[in-house]
Amino acid sequence: MKMKQKLEVTSSRPYSIFLGVGLEDLGAYLEKELGGIEHLLIVTHPRVKEHYLERLINGFSAFQCDVLVVPPGEEEKSLERLSKLTSEAVACGADRHSVVLALGGGVIGDLAGFFASVYMRGIRFVQIPTTLLAQVDSSIGGKTAVNHPSGKNLLGAFYPPLVVWTDFSTLETLPWEEVLNGLAETVKHAVLGDAALFSFLETNQQKIIDRIPEIYQELTSRSLQVKVRVVMEDEKEKGQRMLLNLGHSFGHALETEAAYQGISHGKGVSIGMIAATYLAEARGLITSAEVKRILDLVKGLGLPIQIQGKDPEILLHLMEADKKNQKGQKVLILPDKIGHALVVRDACDEEILQAWNKVIIK
Amino acid sequence: MKMKQKLEVTSSRPYSIFLGVGLEDLGAYLEKELGGIEHLLIVTHPRVKEHYLERLINGFSAFQCDVLVVPPGEEEKSLERLSKLTSEAVACGADRHSVVLALGGGVIGDLAGFFASVYMRGIRFVQIPTTLLAQVDSSIGGKTAVNHPSGKNLLGAFYPPLVVWTDFSTLETLPWEEVLNGLAETVKHAVLGDAALFSFLETNQQKIIDRIPEIYQELTSRSLQVKVRVVMEDEKEKGQRMLLNLGHSFGHALETEAAYQGISHGKGVSIGMIAATYLAEARGLITSAEVKRILDLVKGLGLPIQIQGKDPEILLHLMEADKKNQKGQKVLILPDKIGHALVVRDACDEEILQAWNKVIIK
Ligand SMILES: NC(=O)c1ccc[n+]([C@@H]2O[C@H](COP(=O)([O-])OP(=O)(O)OC[C@H]3O[C@@H](n4cnc5c(N)ncnc54)[C@H](O)[C@@H]3O)[C@@H](O)[C@H]2O)c1
Ligand SMILES: NC(=O)c1ccc[n+]([C@@H]2O[C@H](COP(=O)([O-])OP(=O)(O)OC[C@H]3O[C@@H](n4cnc5c(N)ncnc54)[C@H](O)[C@@H]3O)[C@@H](O)[C@H]2O)c1
Repeated sequence: MKMKQKLEVTSSRPYSIFLGVGLEDLGAYLEKELGGIEHLLIVTHPRVKEHYLERLINGFSAFQCDVLVVPPGEEEKSLERLSKLTSEAVACGADRHSVVLALGGGVIGDLAGFFASVYMRGIRFVQIPTTLLAQVDSSIGGKTAVNHPSGKNLLGAFYPPLVVWTDFSTLETLPWEEVLNGLAETVKHAVLGDAALFSFLETNQQKIIDRIPEIYQELTSRSLQVKVRVVMEDEKEKGQRMLLNLGHSFGHALETEAAYQGISHGKGVSIGMIAATYLAEARGLITSAEVKRILDLVKGLGLPIQIQGKDPEILLHLMEADKKNQKGQKVLILPDKIGHALVVRDACDEEILQAWNKVIIK
Repeated sequence: MKMKQKLEVTSSRPYSIFLGVGLEDLGAYLEKELGGIEHLLIVTHPRVKEHYLERLINGFSAFQCDVLVVPPGEEEKSLERLSKLTSEAVACGADRHSVVLALGGGVIGDLAGFFASVYMRGIRFVQIPTTLLAQVDSSIGGKTAVNHPSGKNLLGAFYPPLVVWTDFSTLETLPWEEVLNGLAETVKHAVLGDAALFSFLETNQQKIIDRIPEIYQELTSRSLQVKVRVVMEDEKEKGQRMLLNLGHSFGHALETEAAYQGISHGKGVSIGMIAATYLAEARGLITSAEVKRILDLVKGLGLPIQIQGKDPEILLHLMEADKKNQKGQKVLILPDKIGHALVVRDACDEEILQAWNKVIIK
């Protein structure tokens, strides 16, 4: 059973998120709802192209349509790839009226979104997320970026899409490792902002592991609504939106330490969230019973709660580069109960080290 | 006599333009008006640094201040330079709260403005224009960009500054060739939108050539107000703002043909505006008496009205790449009287060639 849903995001430029729609129906939507579109520029990965391009393009008979293929990998989120996309776009005649379609996961969404934001000072774009992470997280909120040797996501723009078009059936071909990345963000959303979603995940653990489509539709829809709610309150990331970084201060340190090789983003977020939870427990912010529920769910879904052989001092040091930090003071997001989190600005190195020690297996 | 002026631009993000202020007073303004600034990142050219950095920095004792020096030249408006600025900014600890100051002409303004728009998804920036062109034109309107092998200003953003800080005394060291680039835009502004400014330029031709400061203050202030007015009516360049491209469709073709080497922007605009004026005359849009006044003023200021040995067919062809064009139809801006212009979408190649022939010396 496919259930269609439409959410409206009110930002500086309002847009709609469609859930449970079909790839083949996007063409008709664009034709009807958005006038004056003639030329589409699809940016995608080889594997995604293979599985889904045909279904998408079937709906596009009314448009001229070009496809730009980007090799997979985080390293493609770069200025060099942006420059190549620019040459290719000019070569196929893309102008101010063209529309960029980002068909893929977070890498394609961030890269193609940033490209759209700067090409001829900004052309329209559509997010078509095909990974769980992109569906629950990266396609929402209007953040786009590329990496730079000096830092991850260092160059980018706040550039909301015209529309987010989410076809859940694309998850069927997604490798389990990639599903886990999205599940980590979903648990994070539940912990920081939706106790009912947390219970839903607890109840349906096995169905999630068995990849039952209806469960994914439900968890995706609920999970992204947490993000939509937080983002609407704080589009440009001045306050509330920081809550979405629960687990990221610790997690990014792990990812950086592993140079984004050894550890997936999902695992980083997962262990990072556990470290933040331990710190909250040590401060008496959250009860031990709730800590146990968080540990059990994370473990139950097959996400890690510990990591082997890291040096806490090095990780502490890496946390200093966090974009959230202010005047040298580390800014952390800690859960104070399941479904709620807060910003903490006075954590000392001592207690951060203790939290690291709890998630590191010597 | 120095006269201070303040203009308010109402755009998606309103900002102020200060005219007739001193470089040394910007620090106090930033301290008083804009809270929470700690770190300034000045982007400038070697020559401008030599002449003006000390005066500017004298006012900055309250801030940590770093200077990034960019070699002169249009070729520095590139992704490669943007990438270098990024490394340098990270190395000197620039974060979300840093403010970029663009101290220089249009190249610095466009490059540093675009850099500010994408660094950490956008940090604040201030325009401190030191060329006449930047003061009357490029620092106003919020357009920023870099060039790309596939096209000039191909990647950029609409990103209004916090404030534009114009110290007219910086014009004293500007080479005459650079002054001419600004004068061409000033004449253009007069022709398309301000008959009184046109008369002022006619009356004061000799004083302009003699570089009398008071005259420059007056002409700069009036000229940029034409741009401010047009831009406020159409921030994102959907309609009216196209009028500012008077002379550019022809002019860019000349500049492209010369690969931006042989011909300055001012000369391109000047000859382009004359070609557009001839086309308007041939259509009976503008009287021959007014055409003569335009020719006389342009010549009188030492700007060219003709060019040697170009092939009109090649130039016609180059006009096809104009960003304004729609559905293959060339879009031209033509003056219909001094102080007024209109958008023309039905010019045929024949009449465009005739206009080219009038400005080309065989
Ligand atoms: N903009 C934001 O707000 C935001 C938020 C979180 C993460 N991100 C970014 O997202 C990126 C990670 O995104 P991701 O986890 O989606 O990874 P990804 O985009 O790299 O996709 C993972 C892999 O899955 C493949 N794939 C995608 N869809 C598929 C499908 N339906 N079937 C089979 N294979 C498929 C891709 O080809 C790719 O190789 C990171 O760069 C991160 O910085 C951005
Ligand atoms: N953003 C816009 O709306 C807009 C509008 C028009 C032009 N532009 C851009 O502006 C650029 C041209 O700008 P420009 O004409 O100012 O040239 P420029 O920025 O290259 O400056 C010209 C030269 O003058 C030197 N200089 C600057 N100020 C000086 C001073 N006070 N004394 C001595 N030397 C000084 C510079 O070092 C440089 O070598 C082009 O790239 C064009 O695309 C942008």
